[in-house]
Formats: sequence, C-alpha cells, structure tokens
Amino acid sequence: MAERLPTAPPRGMRDILPEEVELRDAAVREIVGVYCAYGFRRIETPALENLRLLAGSEGGENEKLIFKVMKRGDELEGARRAGDELADLGLRFDLTVPLARYYADNHARLPAPLKAIQIGPVWRAERPQKGRFRQFTQCDIDVLGIASPLVEIELILATTDALTRLGLSGLTVRINDRRVLEVIARHCGFPEASHGAFFIAFDKLDRLGADGLVAELREGGHDAQAVGRFAELLPGLSPDKVSLDALRAALPGAGATDAWDSLATIIETTNGEVAAGCRVRFDPTLVRGMGYYTGPIFEIAAAGYPSSIAGGGRYDRMIGRLLGRDVPASGFSIGFERLIERGGLPARDATESAQRRVALLVDETSDVGAAVRAAKALRSEGYLVSLEVRRKNVKRQLDDLMTHGFWGYAAVDDRGGRPEVKPLVRKAEAR
Amino acid sequence: MAERLPTAPPRGMRDILPEEVELRDAAVREIVGVYCAYGFRRIETPALENLRLLAGSEGGENEKLIFKVMKRGDELEGARRAGDELADLGLRFDLTVPLARYYADNHARLPAPLKAIQIGPVWRAERPQKGRFRQFTQCDIDVLGIASPLVEIELILATTDALTRLGLSGLTVRINDRRVLEVIARHCGFPEASHGAFFIAFDKLDRLGADGLVAELREGGHDAQAVGRFAELLPGLSPDKVSLDALRAALPGAGATDAWDSLATIIETTNGEVAAGCRVRFDPTLVRGMGYYTGPIFEIAAAGYPSSIAGGGRYDRMIGRLLGRDVPASGFSIGFERLIERGGLPARDATESAQRRVALLVDETSDVGAAVRAAKALRSEGYLVSLEVRRKNVKRQLDDLMTHGFWGYAAVDDRGGRPEVKPLVRKAEAR
Repeated sequence: MAERLPTAPPRGMRDILPEEVELRDAAVREIVGVYCAYGFRRIETPALENLRLLAGSEGGENEKLIFKVMKRGDELEGARRAGDELADLGLRFDLTVPLARYYADNHARLPAPLKAIQIGPVWRAERPQKGRFRQFTQCDIDVLGIASPLVEIELILATTDALTRLGLSGLTVRINDRRVLEVIARHCGFPEASHGAFFIAFDKLDRLGADGLVAELREGGHDAQAVGRFAELLPGLSPDKVSLDALRAALPGAGATDAWDSLATIIETTNGEVAAGCRVRFDPTLVRGMGYYTGPIFEIAAAGYPSSIAGGGRYDRMIGRLLGRDVPASGFSIGFERLIERGGLPARDATESAQRRVALLVDETSDVGAAVRAAKALRSEGYLVSLEVRRKNVKRQLDDLMTHGFWGYAAVDDRGGRPEVKPLVRKAEAR
Repeated sequence: MAERLPTAPPRGMRDILPEEVELRDAAVREIVGVYCAYGFRRIETPALENLRLLAGSEGGENEKLIFKVMKRGDELEGARRAGDELADLGLRFDLTVPLARYYADNHARLPAPLKAIQIGPVWRAERPQKGRFRQFTQCDIDVLGIASPLVEIELILATTDALTRLGLSGLTVRINDRRVLEVIARHCGFPEASHGAFFIAFDKLDRLGADGLVAELREGGHDAQAVGRFAELLPGLSPDKVSLDALRAALPGAGATDAWDSLATIIETTNGEVAAGCRVRFDPTLVRGMGYYTGPIFEIAAAGYPSSIAGGGRYDRMIGRLLGRDVPASGFSIGFERLIERGGLPARDATESAQRRVALLVDETSDVGAAVRAAKALRSEGYLVSLEVRRKNVKRQLDDLMTHGFWGYAAVDDRGGRPEVKPLVRKAEAR
C-alpha cells in the first residue's frame, strides 16, 4: 500500500465543521441584511490577482505576505530558462486592492456611486499563531464616487447597526482624519518627506506607550526638535483630555483643511443616530497602518473584544493610480474571524434550524420507497429530515444525534404514512 | 507618474457585477434550502491544499491543471539552492478531494453519517475559452458513511428537487454503475489491467460516435477480439434499446454483482417520487471520467442545456487511501456556472429585492442629520435605501438609477420627516 498522505489542512489554515459554518452563515445573513438596507450590494472578484497589481499597491506589510502562484506550461519553462520571475499571480491579501481594480475595470457598467459589500476569504502567509490564520474571511463595505462625509456617517451607522444586531454591546467608534495627523506632523515641524515614517511609528503608540514611542522616533533619525515638540504635545492628545474643537484651537495655522468640519459633522450626526449603547469619539492618536488613507479613519472597539473589531477609512487616491483619474472612496471592514471566535451572533438563529432537524431511522430491510415517502411527508411540514440507517445500538445512535444538534427522530414503518416525530432527550433530563 | 497597472482580472477569471451576484445568491439560497430539508449541512475547507494530496488523488485530467503556490521565505530559498520543488501548495481543482481529506482529519468530531453541502470556488488552469473559466463555483452534496442505495435515491431526489425549484424542466437523470461497466468489459474479454483505459475511451462515445470509439480502441492497442465483441455489443447498449433487466440477462456469468439490484431499486424508487416532468433512466453507456468511482454513477440533462448540468457517483475507496479504512461515500455535483449562465433561477427572487430598492437624493447643502433620519424612516418600512448626492442633471440620474435596478426614489427636505417615495418610470412607459 502506498504511503498514507497527510490529512491536516495546510499550515495555518483550517477546516470548518457544520455547527460553525451555520453560525458563520447566520452572522453573514444578519450583516448582509443590514448592509442591503443601507443600499449596499454584493460584488465578487477572483481570489487571484496579477502579482504586479498586488505588489504595486500600498498595502503596507501585507504585500510581503502574498501567496504567489507559479506560471504554467510553456510560460513556466520559458521563465525557468530565462531566469525570470516564476510567479505571475498571487492570492489577494485584502479586499480593497481588488475592489479598486474591479472599479477601474468595470466602472462604466457599475452604478455611480458604487456601494459594494464584499465578503470573502483573503490569504496572508503570516507566521501561524493562536487565533490568526493564513486564510480568513473579511467583510467590507465601500462607497466609491461620493466625497461627502455623508459616506462616513452611513459607513459608521451601518457597521454599528450590524454589530449591534449580532449582539455586540459597548461599541465605541474611534475616529480621526489623516489630514489632522498631517496638521499635527506639520505643527511639530516634521519635514513632509518624513510624515509617512512618522505615522508608521505613531501607529505603535498602543504597544510602545508614550515614552517608548518618543524613543523610537528619536532612534528612527527623525528631526530632534520635531520629536521634542511632539513629546510635549502627545500627553494632551489622549481622547480623554482633548476635544475636536480644543485641538483645532491648539494647532492654529498648521495647514488649512476641511477635515475639522467634516469630523465635527460625522461625530455629531452619528452620535445622534447610532444604536443605543454606542458612541463615536474623536481620537487624535488613531493612525491605522495603511499608506493609502487620505481622509477620515475609524475603528470600532467592543466590550469583551481585546482589539478593534472593525476598521476603515477614506482612500481617495487609490483608484486614480489604476484609472488615471481619482475617484472618492471610503470603506469599513469587519474582522469577521474575531467576531465569530468571540461568539458575535444572536443564538436564536442557530437554534431555530437545530430545532427542526430530525433523523428518520431506516432498517436495512425497510421498504425504501416507504422511507422516502415518510421523509417527504415530514419535509413538507418544514422539518429538515436526514434519512439514517438504524444502527444495532440505537441508544448510542440517539445520543450521537443529540451531540450533533438533531432535535428529534422518527422511525419508518413499512405501512407508510407520516411517522411520529419524538424529541431527543438526554437521560438526565428525562428523569 | 508611474506606469498604469493592468486592471483586467487574471486571464480566464472574471469579476461579477451586483446584478449577477444577486442572481447567484438567490440560486444558492434555493439550492441550500432544498439540501438542508434533506438533512445536509454546509461544511468548508481551505482553498489551498498540500500539493502532495492534490497530485496524489485520482482526479484524472484535473491534476494537470493545478495552480501551484510557491514555498515562502527560508523554505523557498532552501528549495532554490537544493534544486527542489519550489511549490508546496495548490488551489483545489474540485471539492471531492478536499472533502475526503476533511473527513479523514475530522471524522471523530463529525456526525456519522456526514451529509455535506459544499459550495465554493475551484481553480483549473485550463485553456480559457468561451463559457469556461479558470475560477468557477461548484455545488456538491455528499453522503459519507452509508453504503445503501438509499443514498443515491436521496442524492437524485434532492438534486432534481433543487433544479426544479430553479425553474429547470425536462430533467433526465441518466444512471449506470461502474460495476456494470466492469461486467461489460469482462464479458467482452478485456483483461482486468486494461479496464481503466477501456473506460476512458468508452467515455468518449458521445464525441467519437460508435465507429470512432471502436477505431480508437483498436488503435489504443486493446485486445482485438475484445474490441470485436464490444463492437457487436455497443449498438444494443443504447438506452433506447436496452432495459436494465434485458442487459442483465444478456450478460450472464460475467461477474456476480449486486449492482443490478441496487440500480433497479434506485431507478424504481426515484421514478416514483421525483418531481413532475423528471425521469430516471438506465444508460449503460454512461461512464464519467474520474477513476475513483466504484458504484452507481449519474448525470442530469435538462431541456435547453447542451451538456449535463449535474453529475456524480459513488466512490467507496477514496477516503480509505487517506484514513486507512474505507468509508462508503457518494455525491452529486451541480455545474453552478452552467446553471447561472442559462438563467436557472426563479426571476421573482431578484425582483423582490429590486422592488424595494430606493435612492434617497440629498443636496450638497442639505442638513445631513435630516437625510440620515429620513433614510432610517424608510428603512424601518423595509425599503433598501441608498443615500445619493443629487446631481445637477437629475433626469439623467433617475435614468441611471433605473438602469441599475432601483425601484423608486425620494428627496430629503430639511424639515425632516418621512419623504414620499416615487416609483421610477421610463419616459416611454409614463406616456
């Protein structure tokens, strides 16, 4: 006999059992239901993209984590002989780069504005660790074609609505604007060319603490005087200590921007309409890693979740790089795996279908036609009916059925007709 | 400015526009609804599998079409230096090989029997051609753990139910059994070792015709006398000319098998219970390409579809190669892309949601809060409401909304309250 093959999924990837798929599907239904009510519609792109597109995006660290697909046939042979790149395609590492390409390629046939829902797997070759997978699902909404802060208001209301519907509570939306960060950088005197590096460091505030961050900036070769001014400013940037208006007043003449007005509109309007128990809060220390953001940026923290459960922002210049003209764009992405892992889901959905799941036991010697007709009769009443061959140890079989979420069982008798459905009961409960 | 990147999806792959996603989602809902009523439950496996597993399966031609993923980091460097294989993973080319691995790895935690629904993309590096894509969706059901023909009966009833629900008519299920094909091969005198090659040739009957097939067998170096006997038998194997009982009587002593009885049970029971307008028919010329089949095999033809719309069969020995003990298994796969392409879908679903889709037009100068509250009011009545900025050319904007499937529109006035929803009407219709 041939050597037995490994049966584990590839490293860092996972199989999903029926119970979990049902939870995930129920969560997707809730989220998509809310997003559709806000006028969003699902779109789909292929899992693979041209490597040049993926490698040429501004996806930060993610670009290093691309799973690369080898060329095929003659092309592969040619590349081998010539010593060329052997890979031409890559698995997408997020849903934003593919969306930009999708819009650039299809805009003439798409609604304007495009309000897109994307739910699908992405792949990143990260070092596997607990709770972090190399294939995972992202759940994004994006509005392409509207520059107004109305978009951010809708993104925040839709996403907090969806998360609230999934039973999450204590939602806090932190919001900032890339242009406010620019104002801070300019106010401190960081040269324009170093702003990108400054933001990458600033993004580590949570991890490093204020002192650690300032040390990192100094070691990073930033202008010493600018770092000094930033070190003075930093303690006052805590969202507990500074309001939008106060910071605006404290940073005069550091660059005209309508970021302040637009942030004020977004924060005021969303706080008036957001689901009970949610709040939206200005946080000038929010940075977010991606280099492509150009305007408002936001994240959602929820009670019981250690890190943010959703994040997004405006990226008005990404599509221009593909289309040749800029298209205003802003989006919000839910960390779907984190949500599921922590049970973000109303239990009733899963239960409803479980209550109707029935096993119809058939003897090896039963009349097959009678069994099929009995199943049909129960299905017509709305039961989910699985025909199963009766085992010798029926008691054990009924226990197994319970373990796997069946609600009841029935037995076929050869006289035909509708069999009686009995609920499955654990012995302890039956007493 | 940097060179503009290509925006088309990778060769042979495609973007899906909102209208089509909605049709596809509606079809998936119908299919999954029927399959759940039959006791099936969704499972999921990763898109990537270890290359050794994919390459070591019996997936016929499909194995040559694997998209291979390169090793990463140090492992890639090591492989380069050593001249080793540079790829270690591959994108799945079907859902059956992953299912077998899934079962082998997770069986202790899975219900027995496992009745699995899989709907997801698969990838094949085929030469792109009209209507054939390199990423496409398959939709499979499989029963693992039951050897009885009850399984094939349920597979056939569930799949014909689902297709009927999607508006397909004139469904004909062709059914045969690998063991009947073995009987035919033995009756003709083909040596056991050549049966595989004989079946691969026999599978081309539709394409080659009877004479072409016999010629191919002769040229293929098969035993001349066996080919001669087969050539005599072949005209009588047409499903119009031979019944199951007649063929059984005509092939005496060519190997004992319970295939005949089990085929008789499947055909009789399904014809009694199948949806109106469907029929199930014995066809001894049905072969199907995959080497892993061991028992009944079946395909569905539908009115208006040039090739079969679904196919499957029993593969009792595949899981044993991974698990070390055989597990009876049988499945049915719907060609989802073919289905969608031909509009296999009840139109009402798509229409229902389209009727409730409303654009709420907002002026640049509007009170944003009033707009958000107006949208909320309409959503609470069940409308799908998209906030859209009013364009200068409103007439053109309303036309565009109709083109993209909106049913109505409303305008926000700053006094607040529920705005009046007006249906969108084409000029020609309005007259």
